[in-house]
Amino acid sequence: MEIAILGGTGDIGQGLALRWGYDTDHDLVIGSREQTKARTKAEEYETELDSRSREVSIGAAENSEAAAGADVVVAAVPAYHLADTIESVADALDDESILVTPAVGMKRDEAGFHYNRPGAGSVTALAAEAAPEEVPVVGAFHNLPADRLANLDADLGIDTLLVGEDADARDIVADLAAGIEGLRPLDAGGLANAAEIEGLTPLLINVAQHNDGLHDLGVRFD
Amino acid sequence: MEIAILGGTGDIGQGLALRWGYDTDHDLVIGSREQTKARTKAEEYETELDSRSREVSIGAAENSEAAAGADVVVAAVPAYHLADTIESVADALDDESILVTPAVGMKRDEAGFHYNRPGAGSVTALAAEAAPEEVPVVGAFHNLPADRLANLDADLGIDTLLVGEDADARDIVADLAAGIEGLRPLDAGGLANAAEIEGLTPLLINVAQHNDGLHDLGVRFD
Repeated sequence: MEIAILGGTGDIGQGLALRWGYDTDHDLVIGSREQTKARTKAEEYETELDSRSREVSIGAAENSEAAAGADVVVAAVPAYHLADTIESVADALDDESILVTPAVGMKRDEAGFHYNRPGAGSVTALAAEAAPEEVPVVGAFHNLPADRLANLDADLGIDTLLVGEDADARDIVADLAAGIEGLRPLDAGGLANAAEIEGLTPLLINVAQHNDGLHDLGVRFD
Repeated sequence: MEIAILGGTGDIGQGLALRWGYDTDHDLVIGSREQTKARTKAEEYETELDSRSREVSIGAAENSEAAAGADVVVAAVPAYHLADTIESVADALDDESILVTPAVGMKRDEAGFHYNRPGAGSVTALAAEAAPEEVPVVGAFHNLPADRLANLDADLGIDTLLVGEDADARDIVADLAAGIEGLRPLDAGGLANAAEIEGLTPLLINVAQHNDGLHDLGVRFD
């Protein structure tokens, strides 16, 4: 399967690229607003994988070009860039592609991080509004600790929750998630359930901040 | 330590009473709007504990009487009864007591369960507004699977998150939580962080509903 990771130069994008590169045989393309930036990062990931005896060729392209050939397009960009990014690649998406959104909106005050719920109901719903109507949108990878994900020496042993209106698309993304060792995909149903998933991310940060010895937290449903 | 469990005849109250009765030596008092109902349940819990060779005497009283002598008062009532219950016992609380609130507000639609955030910002904040100003309020035990908690044969291995403005009070409730085998207390900071914790409860229900073999879920931060 060909996976395009838009914003694949950012922290979650990097983690997903390295894990899929290491644990699976999917074709990966890093997307960025600038092709050269994507190329630099793709080579960095190839070098990292090569140092672990995984010879992987990772593509690099400007976002819309990266999206064009992909079966699954992960929009790994900050929430405030999400709608723009999706609109900029809309022509490259169709009913055969799946758009995946891991973005979460947060705000911070003196007490800690808080979920910043957008008017659409959730950032995942906002992505669905920005995407062409025929493109299935799946929310996933919202609650992953980015540094730990990008550190191939670190064990995961955590869950990722999937939401979206198209159950087949959720299943496909669940398979992609399950390909990453130590990551368990769990189905969380329709788009309306996304806000509570996204709200977990600021909570994970707050808990790490208040408890000695805990950092880079993920979550496990048990 | 004396713990009063108001609404101790309900499901979370039952679980906490049985676990504290089995795992600790705290003095427990079950509170209810009717003393006779509290008595019936307290005897039921005593019988269950006795069948496991734990001879424990559990008190029973009308809510305000139960609260009067307690160091810690757990308001284990539904969110829509929380403010009323707290106001009905307010005279029995002072700056030496700690009020604990595990309540979560939820609504349900065809997609699943959703967090029903009250105007106060969270149900925990609503409890703090209802309580006398000098009484420290701690949000805890929001995300516990009630049936599993009440089944002493079931292992927990899950976390509970604590929020509140008074760090000493959080520590005391954390110790009470840690007294329950398999339950790990984690500090989540001030009251402003409560909404994301409460929002986890509908998510746990949705995830259990959408994944075969998962039920009575708790959460573990890892």
